[in-house]
Amino acid sequence: MQKINVIKVGGAVVEDSTSLACLIQQFATLPGYKILVHGGGRSATRIAAQLGIESHMVGGRRITDEDMLQVVTMVYGGLVNKRIVAALQAQGVNAVGLTGADMDIIRSHRRAPKMVSMDDGTQAMVDFGFVGDVDYANGHRLAKLILPQDNSDAVVPVVAPLTHDGQGNILNTNADTMAATVAKALTPHFEVTLTYCFEKSGVLTNPDDDNSVIPTINTQSYAQLKTDGIVSGGMIPKLDNAFDSIASGVRRVVITHYTDIQATHGTTIEQ
Amino acid sequence: MQKINVIKVGGAVVEDSTSLACLIQQFATLPGYKILVHGGGRSATRIAAQLGIESHMVGGRRITDEDMLQVVTMVYGGLVNKRIVAALQAQGVNAVGLTGADMDIIRSHRRAPKMVSMDDGTQAMVDFGFVGDVDYANGHRLAKLILPQDNSDAVVPVVAPLTHDGQGNILNTNADTMAATVAKALTPHFEVTLTYCFEKSGVLTNPDDDNSVIPTINTQSYAQLKTDGIVSGGMIPKLDNAFDSIASGVRRVVITHYTDIQATHGTTIEQ
Repeated sequence: MQKINVIKVGGAVVEDSTSLACLIQQFATLPGYKILVHGGGRSATRIAAQLGIESHMVGGRRITDEDMLQVVTMVYGGLVNKRIVAALQAQGVNAVGLTGADMDIIRSHRRAPKMVSMDDGTQAMVDFGFVGDVDYANGHRLAKLILPQDNSDAVVPVVAPLTHDGQGNILNTNADTMAATVAKALTPHFEVTLTYCFEKSGVLTNPDDDNSVIPTINTQSYAQLKTDGIVSGGMIPKLDNAFDSIASGVRRVVITHYTDIQATHGTTIEQ
Repeated sequence: MQKINVIKVGGAVVEDSTSLACLIQQFATLPGYKILVHGGGRSATRIAAQLGIESHMVGGRRITDEDMLQVVTMVYGGLVNKRIVAALQAQGVNAVGLTGADMDIIRSHRRAPKMVSMDDGTQAMVDFGFVGDVDYANGHRLAKLILPQDNSDAVVPVVAPLTHDGQGNILNTNADTMAATVAKALTPHFEVTLTYCFEKSGVLTNPDDDNSVIPTINTQSYAQLKTDGIVSGGMIPKLDNAFDSIASGVRRVVITHYTDIQATHGTTIEQ
């Protein structure tokens, strides 16, 4: 079975020109089949502010009203995505930018209002607006696109964190979830490695000490880390996606620094 | 040889929700292989204005400075393109949004400053900024994407008016030229019909009378129409693209109303 690397990079990496250049260089030289899944939240917040649209976040997740949906569609699907595609093409990588709507690759439904733990510890019913919870991904179609039918260059998808509901609506979708969805959908076609790249060196015991990387986390130690409060906040949905991927047949899941997309360090997730 | 329809729709059509819905409906029911090439200038002007960026046009062409490049990348590649893709998917059309950068489909170079006839009849040297003049299109790659390798749905590209220079730069590119470029590049693979759809019923002898459609124009009558001043302004580059397409092996080129994407009326271009 062919191997593939699914690389997720956060907004902070792709929105800074220095770290983006570093990422592009590394990603271009990564051998074999590959997919890049990116965020873009900071650019969305910046462009929204310039348009006089306020960003509202709950538990690190963006409330996406109609105006904000327009912003994320532009910024994730256009500005961030196409810049990465053009930069990869300049490195000889046959990149193609995709959202979940393109070729119906990832379909979702609009999230119903739900009870959420607020930053102050209270619970509240929150309507996240035009946010998509993933229903399915078309791994077959994605695999067909990636695997060349002749001697031409393999296609390298660059995936923006947008999905659609099949009714004509674009929905804002968490980029970590997008990466896990893509990785899981490709397991019948590839031996998949999923690498979450971000500004830290992995899951840390001390968030201020980049040398405190936890080398491996399994289901048991994950429960303990949450109980002890070592893993909290935005790291929990990321790790939930990581465990979900491993449980669904993804061969290897690593959370590491964005300068380590070959995943030689970082935190490895085990079942 | 398989047939394909390349449909170009102007910004005015795709940016009004009623005419867009009409177009989507018609395009979805158009049988056979097809490609949609869209504009988006009015949305770009609107979003730019909201961001405090002024739009400068010379002879109907946009001056694209760095800020404006950001806007058109967002608006054409993200907002307009992904909305059309999602709307087509809702109609069961397997649409994929592309710019020229995606899969290196259309490469261009930045236009050098050039002498241009101004609206007042004088000539002036104009730097259009980040505007791309097309160098080549990869018709083989596009054809491979469109023609299904198995029983799956044919892919339907939705092309935004953006190209890249192969050095990592996105360039703003005229949508009429994009459509002609795509049509010409597909001639080794398909029998191509290129249809320019806009708000008028065709090339008119009297711009205020939608019943004054010229049924056919050939190279000779085109020269006469220009001499007589019947064809002028923005219609000239559109017709130049049309004649270029016919001369390059596109089987049929029609300029018609956006409610007539099957091109049963309008102005037919002949060599």
